[in-house]
Amino acid sequence: MKKIEHIGIAVIDLEEASIVYEKLFGSAAYKREEVVNEGVKTAFFKNGPNKIELLEATNAESPIAKFIAKKGEGIHHIAFEVDDIVSEIARLKKEGFIVLNETPKKGADNKLVVFLHPKSTNGVLIELCQEIY
Amino acid sequence: MKKIEHIGIAVIDLEEASIVYEKLFGSAAYKREEVVNEGVKTAFFKNGPNKIELLEATNAESPIAKFIAKKGEGIHHIAFEVDDIVSEIARLKKEGFIVLNETPKKGADNKLVVFLHPKSTNGVLIELCQEIY
Repeated sequence: MKKIEHIGIAVIDLEEASIVYEKLFGSAAYKREEVVNEGVKTAFFKNGPNKIELLEATNAESPIAKFIAKKGEGIHHIAFEVDDIVSEIARLKKEGFIVLNETPKKGADNKLVVFLHPKSTNGVLIELCQEIY
Repeated sequence: MKKIEHIGIAVIDLEEASIVYEKLFGSAAYKREEVVNEGVKTAFFKNGPNKIELLEATNAESPIAKFIAKKGEGIHHIAFEVDDIVSEIARLKKEGFIVLNETPKKGADNKLVVFLHPKSTNGVLIELCQEIY
């Protein structure tokens, strides 16, 4: 694990939240992207070596819609950058972590992603992500 | 704002959680520290340019005890590193953010810290921190 690649924040209204985070960072989102299979639209902000990803649900079945219904707006996940997601999953499974998707899937921002179940990580939804070249 | 300095994670048992995060990162906490005025004891893990801070409450009045009672274990705050916390607070107040403590206070890891109210940041408790030299 090399660094925090991004933090994902669940928001109700991506446009309104983008204005807030533009003020926070003093610069606009550098990328917007819809991830249809996850039911989200996203806006990315750069902050030095890290990114902040705002996520709005595009349908009621989206994990983000369910998260907001249960907990309200707020931090949804932390994503750590890895070089080799397959070997990292194997290592973490051996260490006792619960992997939500055994096979890495295509996420936002041109990444392969895997999630660890919060019950194995003290309540934190952790994403591992590897850049697709 | 220069980078994510750390992410604070509220945990029930610092020793047990430290074992989990040691497995996650493949290395042990590099620092442990109690912050008496915040009612917390902490363990810090390095991850590239970023840190993860695990926080356990040391008394029932601690913000961490209240957070866990309400929401359970999980991500408590994001801290961003700034060069000049006083001017950054002034800028953010002008932009409409609600500052929880007007005067920077001494936090863990030799930092001056200020928190922004989650109601002005889409449910995210944001800390600004400046290294004390």
